Order: sequence, then C-alpha cells, then structure tokens
Amino acid sequence: MTEKLVIWTYDWVPGGKSGPRGHVRDIRLRWACEEAGLPYEVKSVPFEGRDSAHFARQPFGQVPFLEDGDITLFESGACLLHLAHKSEVLMPRDAKGEAEVLEWTIAGLNSMEMVTVPWWFVSLFDGPDNRLKDWMLQRLAHLDAVLTSHEWLAAGRFTVADLLMADVLRVPRLRAANPHPALEAYIERVCARPAFKRAYDGQMAHFALGDS
Amino acid sequence: MTEKLVIWTYDWVPGGKSGPRGHVRDIRLRWACEEAGLPYEVKSVPFEGRDSAHFARQPFGQVPFLEDGDITLFESGACLLHLAHKSEVLMPRDAKGEAEVLEWTIAGLNSMEMVTVPWWFVSLFDGPDNRLKDWMLQRLAHLDAVLTSHEWLAAGRFTVADLLMADVLRVPRLRAANPHPALEAYIERVCARPAFKRAYDGQMAHFALGDS
Repeated sequence: MTEKLVIWTYDWVPGGKSGPRGHVRDIRLRWACEEAGLPYEVKSVPFEGRDSAHFARQPFGQVPFLEDGDITLFESGACLLHLAHKSEVLMPRDAKGEAEVLEWTIAGLNSMEMVTVPWWFVSLFDGPDNRLKDWMLQRLAHLDAVLTSHEWLAAGRFTVADLLMADVLRVPRLRAANPHPALEAYIERVCARPAFKRAYDGQMAHFALGDS
Repeated sequence: MTEKLVIWTYDWVPGGKSGPRGHVRDIRLRWACEEAGLPYEVKSVPFEGRDSAHFARQPFGQVPFLEDGDITLFESGACLLHLAHKSEVLMPRDAKGEAEVLEWTIAGLNSMEMVTVPWWFVSLFDGPDNRLKDWMLQRLAHLDAVLTSHEWLAAGRFTVADLLMADVLRVPRLRAANPHPALEAYIERVCARPAFKRAYDGQMAHFALGDS
C-alpha cells in the first residue's frame, strides 16, 4: 500500500518576466514523480507572511518540502535523492551507478548552483558582468567539457542528476550568458522530456489558481 | 575483506593567514573516516598544473575525490553521504533518521555554503559588507534559530550533517562576521571532537610534507 506523496509549495508566486513562476523548486519534485510514475498531490503554504508553522517544516522559510508517509523532507536536492531510491527510472540500482548519480547530483547543487545562483542574484543589481562572472563561466566551461563527450551525466543514461542539472541551467539569465552550444543542447534535450512539460504545466496551473 | 579507502587531495596548498591549508575539503572525508573508524590512506595530485588526468577524475579540477574499491566519487558532499552508509556513527539506520541526515547535509551544501562561500569570495575584493552580506546574515539567523533549541541538526545526535555544517561555518572570515553566540558555540562543540583534531592534524602534516 503506497500513500500518495505530498509536494508542498507556495500558494502563489509572481509571474511575468522577472517572477519565479516556472522556476520554483517544487518543479524538481513534480518532474521526478512524473518521470517515475510516482503518485503525488500538491499542497500549499502561503507565499505572503510565512509563519512559524512554515519555519518548523522548512527552517530557511523556503519551498518545497516533501511528505512521504510519516517522513517529511526539505531541500529539493534531498527530496530528489530520496525519490531516486523509489524508482530505477531516476537512479540505477548498482553501486557504481548510484555513486555516479550521487556525485553528479551534488555537483549540480554544490559546484554549479553554488556559483550560478549567487551570480544571478548579484546580476540583479550589477548586471551580468559582475564579480562572480569569471567563476560562473569557469564552471560552465568545465561542465561543457563533460557534456561534449557525454550525452548524460551519470550511468550512461538519463537520471535524476540530469533533471537537477538541467533545472539549474535553464534559468533564462544564465542561458543568455552561456557561450557553450553543447550545454544549450543538453538543456534542450533534458527539458524536451514529456515529464518536464507535465511538471512545468502543473506548476504554472497551480500558481495561476492563486491569481486574483 | 575491506579494502582501505583512498582520499585524494593536493600534494600541497599555501598556508599562512590567507592560504586554504586546514580548510581543504579532504578534511571532511578524513574527519568522517576518523569518526567512524574507517581505515583510509591519503594520496596526492599536483596542486600546480592540474592536468587532464585530474579532470578525468574531478571534472571541476578540485579535490577531494574518494576511492572505495572500484568506485570513485568526487564532491565532498557526495563522499560524505557515501561514507555515511558505511557506519551508524555517521548516520542512523532508520528511515526517519536517514531522511534528517540527508536534508541537513544538503542544507549545509545548498542553503548555507551556497551563500557563505560566494559571500567569502566577494569579500576578498569588496570586504565583508558586500552584495551578499544580507543574504548570508539571513541564512545564519535561520540556522541560529534551529541551533538555539537543538544541540545537533539531525536525529537528536551528532551525525555527518553536523560534520559538514561545522566545516562550512568554521571559516575564520565567516566566524568573524557571525553575530550569533549559539552558532559559535555549535561550531566549537562540533570541532572539539577528537576526530576533527586528528583530521585537521592529518591535513596539516600532509601539506607540510610538500613545503620545500
């Protein structure tokens, strides 16, 4: 008997050119569930006026968090690795394949996103040619060197590591600054998966419900 | 029959006030092995002139990476989670405890270090009152709220999540900017563990061998 997974996200976020709609990290969990055929529902916490109940479940006041029976997990990366253990679609079951998925998922979080998100944040004030630009371009170049000779990051096939990395890379401001055709082709290849489209459409429809 | 783990790091890094000696991330793996009593040896790649052999094992040209029999893993966070499955000292074996360790380890990598390291990097140019300061202070405040009511991050006891978080937080420049006594006490508590001291001394001795 499998209980339905619950993905928690905001009830609404701004859309338009600069709003995060379409990029809120619940999409990573939706996408993983769609790939794996794991049944899930989506519930909301208020975007405005985050309260102590929210902080009790997500100490940094962010979304998403995941309910899996009596287990609740925060951090999208942790939720992805948790979900990966539920389906071979997301991660192979051999020790070597698991290790590759683990290292590339963490690389997405701690080598790429650790540079791309702060670069993006500083670019809101100082434009794209900011203090973090060279570091960001160096990381993109290293990843590009991998993806010119590999179609996927881990285990020779699509895994949750690609899902995470593509979501990190598909930020419009970052794509506009990316000089590497192989990286752009990778983003397009991963985001062309039907499960991404379903996850994306699901997030857009969810936040549209909160428009008044 | 257990093969000895191999932790790969540089043969030398600069020391002194501004060098990374004592903070190279191989210390996280040494520390985890020391906590768990896992036998390991340390091998080196050249710090100067990193070559394609290095990039083949660490696509971002960094250290550490870990050899565990025929499995090689890069990303210190991935190595820690891999090691955590080898010893209950690092992570409890119940599903709820594992989930807590996973979410807090990822929080260390993707909510804290994703802000503290870029803040530190920008501070080298612009000083501590830079573009990323408010974001960094907000993250410290959220973590402080957790650590004023919890001695440890996950599962009610020391785990690999504390090891990682304390290593993220113990950077001198960051400690100097941290206004929270509970956070400082946490860093001191975690780093007072004998296994940290052995790992730290091991790294310092290793890099001293490369001094000429």
